[in-house]
Amino acid sequence: MSKLKLLLCLLGIIFSVNTYAQNDAEVLKKIYKNALTNGKSYDWLNHLSNQIGGRLSGSLNAEKAVNYTKEELDKLGLDKVWLQPVMVPKWVRGFKEHAFIESEKGKTTTVNICALGGSVATAALGLKANVVEVKNFEELETLGKENIEGKIVFYNRPMQADLIDTFEAYGGCVNQRYKGAIEASKYGAAGVIVRSMNLRLDDFPHTGSMTYGDIPVTDRIPSAAISTNDAELLSTMLKLDKSIKFYFKQSCKQLKDVLSYNVIGQITGSEFPNEYMIVGGHLDSWDLGDGSHDDGAGVVQSMDVLRLLKESGITPKRSIRVVLFMNEENGLRGGKKYAEVAKQKGENHVFALESDAGGFTPRGFSFDCNDASFNQVLSWQPLFKPYLIHYFEKGHSGADVGPLKTETNVLAGLRPDSQRYFDHHHASNDTFDAVNKRELELGAATMTALVYLFDKYGVNPIINEKQIKK
Amino acid sequence: MSKLKLLLCLLGIIFSVNTYAQNDAEVLKKIYKNALTNGKSYDWLNHLSNQIGGRLSGSLNAEKAVNYTKEELDKLGLDKVWLQPVMVPKWVRGFKEHAFIESEKGKTTTVNICALGGSVATAALGLKANVVEVKNFEELETLGKENIEGKIVFYNRPMQADLIDTFEAYGGCVNQRYKGAIEASKYGAAGVIVRSMNLRLDDFPHTGSMTYGDIPVTDRIPSAAISTNDAELLSTMLKLDKSIKFYFKQSCKQLKDVLSYNVIGQITGSEFPNEYMIVGGHLDSWDLGDGSHDDGAGVVQSMDVLRLLKESGITPKRSIRVVLFMNEENGLRGGKKYAEVAKQKGENHVFALESDAGGFTPRGFSFDCNDASFNQVLSWQPLFKPYLIHYFEKGHSGADVGPLKTETNVLAGLRPDSQRYFDHHHASNDTFDAVNKRELELGAATMTALVYLFDKYGVNPIINEKQIKK
Repeated sequence: MSKLKLLLCLLGIIFSVNTYAQNDAEVLKKIYKNALTNGKSYDWLNHLSNQIGGRLSGSLNAEKAVNYTKEELDKLGLDKVWLQPVMVPKWVRGFKEHAFIESEKGKTTTVNICALGGSVATAALGLKANVVEVKNFEELETLGKENIEGKIVFYNRPMQADLIDTFEAYGGCVNQRYKGAIEASKYGAAGVIVRSMNLRLDDFPHTGSMTYGDIPVTDRIPSAAISTNDAELLSTMLKLDKSIKFYFKQSCKQLKDVLSYNVIGQITGSEFPNEYMIVGGHLDSWDLGDGSHDDGAGVVQSMDVLRLLKESGITPKRSIRVVLFMNEENGLRGGKKYAEVAKQKGENHVFALESDAGGFTPRGFSFDCNDASFNQVLSWQPLFKPYLIHYFEKGHSGADVGPLKTETNVLAGLRPDSQRYFDHHHASNDTFDAVNKRELELGAATMTALVYLFDKYGVNPIINEKQIKK
Repeated sequence: MSKLKLLLCLLGIIFSVNTYAQNDAEVLKKIYKNALTNGKSYDWLNHLSNQIGGRLSGSLNAEKAVNYTKEELDKLGLDKVWLQPVMVPKWVRGFKEHAFIESEKGKTTTVNICALGGSVATAALGLKANVVEVKNFEELETLGKENIEGKIVFYNRPMQADLIDTFEAYGGCVNQRYKGAIEASKYGAAGVIVRSMNLRLDDFPHTGSMTYGDIPVTDRIPSAAISTNDAELLSTMLKLDKSIKFYFKQSCKQLKDVLSYNVIGQITGSEFPNEYMIVGGHLDSWDLGDGSHDDGAGVVQSMDVLRLLKESGITPKRSIRVVLFMNEENGLRGGKKYAEVAKQKGENHVFALESDAGGFTPRGFSFDCNDASFNQVLSWQPLFKPYLIHYFEKGHSGADVGPLKTETNVLAGLRPDSQRYFDHHHASNDTFDAVNKRELELGAATMTALVYLFDKYGVNPIINEKQIKK
């Protein structure tokens, strides 16, 4: 932006009508105080994590989580709480995976792996083959069928450590996990091992979804993630001796789709009941840990938004819904179903906020919206400053709310501190003890504050379109 | 600030000469990249925490830490590395403390306590007495000698949970720990139990320094901290029955002062070798944990600042020193000694930066400096934005650098995210596993960036005094 443009923009802000009232600072203070001294999110998360546990779509635990969260929402005195049916995929891990590196006949080193979500099993006795290490799909092409056929492809491109936003580092690697099997299959690979999406060197394998595209069921190759420590080990051993073999055994399988539910609660708007604002996270999780950060945190924070609005004496003008989406991890069926039903009913969703980046200290939000709405948000920044909320950028909102996108509405994602997130993501150490109560509560308060402001001032009010237009 | 003033200020910023160069963004990028991909701080901390451990002043471990950090600084190829002698107090904990609540004769509940640093022991058989709970010193006065004499005073004012900055919450409570014994002694109390300075409810007692002022040694009463869970328990039991007794036994004692050292390393300035800029943390820690956050993190980050400057190809104009202070926790002798020697030698310390708030994700700095220097810092904010460094406020710098304050110099404190800090502070869970490698490294990079900018542009350059004056 040129200096003149910047000046005009600043003048616009300074001499425009204030876009928030003195009283808003008091309301935010009340919200944060309630969240930090009387929050419910941590207790709810304790139950979800420690009494229920991992909540993979279609599992008994997922069903328990649906029932538990519905019961808890029922207690909040909302105007309406209901379950929205949705058919979800059911994938089961089977027995604990087993793997080792065989440097010579009878000389093996056990390594930590886990099947990727959606993968097929190995043969009952497991798969043992030579290994070819690559960093990307281009290397596969260079190597060609003659060097890959019958071997296990080992994808070992690490997350880029010098990226400050760890989600960006994740985005730069995750195609190995998601599409690795499809690409390796083209060259006749027998199986796939992927370096875990983890910036830290440790022993936890991290699962996550993968796809076979339109590969016939009989031709699908088993795929697993290996811990970062063991990826380093395997890579080093391969450098010393290309003839070493890798063995793994897993019994996972895809079953028939089963019935599950999105859990929804609503405070009906006092002035514009047909304008919907939603806040949500996903109720399902992977099965290795208890899904505390991904996305138990988002679930309980979203539930607490409605409680905090009520307890802060706020009567929303618009209808505010909490939506606990089912099956974000391996299908996004809940998010798609919610948008589909909303469209069928002609519900006008003006705003949707998702929390699905962990229960860490909130830094702000990223917004998928037009300039008018984004400028409106920027005008609220001073209100958030006392809470050290400083990150307001355009960008990705969230997977579950994505299908609700229109030209005029606002989609947003809570952006917590991301440094520790991938230490736990999809791994057995995504557990309750890794969540800090205050950090979780600050997230709930920050979400509530944004919902409060958008409800009060509306999305795209005229003032912003006219006065703060770029 | 009025709108007109704000406008003038903004105009000043917009049309002033740029206060940093394009090239600075590249230098910062290099610094952060090196810290995140090639940082040394985490390995150093691993050694300090896991090979040495808690480093209470005067202990063998403190001596080991002096030797280890000097050796490591020697390896960095600095211009000079040396030890600065300083006499430090030596307090020893003795055997593990024991405590219980006795609700009736023979019916006891064990609770978690630890002696406060500097406390005297109880009698060899321990101290058992009735308990009087208070929230502050005013309540002591109201109760008076008749209600306090011979009893144990139980200070139970919790940290205020709705304060966003947990250090502010700490500041609002810590007088109970530091001066609790002096105040309780005035009314003839037999001992003092203080609720741990911890926002979380858990079982860890948190130690920390306390003073007896000029109370004669023979009249000093034993003082201990109790875990927050057990403070809640004790308080509840007291509400049910005021006649319950509290027992504790501790064998701590203050020995004679012993010789120790500040560890100092220097890169001599190429243009202004007699202008000193220092960066530091404190090498001593409490004895319960291994002092990873308090302040192993600050130590290794400060060491890494000099390494990062060198490895980024920066030739400082001014002399940059890393100072690892001894005895911050219970005496501040190192900080005082360093300032005393600097004064004797007439060394002009233009800048001092301390990291002593944990190894968590850095958010920015607080500054103890004049307006000209502060405006200079504010002009650099855009350089820090890619690293999510947003907090630049006037305020406290750090205990160890405090004695260096002059009218014109800049003292600064790194401000990491504070939410988890007091979960670990001075407790047995201040351990290496609570430190995240990336968060630690981001702190080191952020400190290096500030040192780089102040070295390049100097403290209080004319441009800022003239053009961005308020």
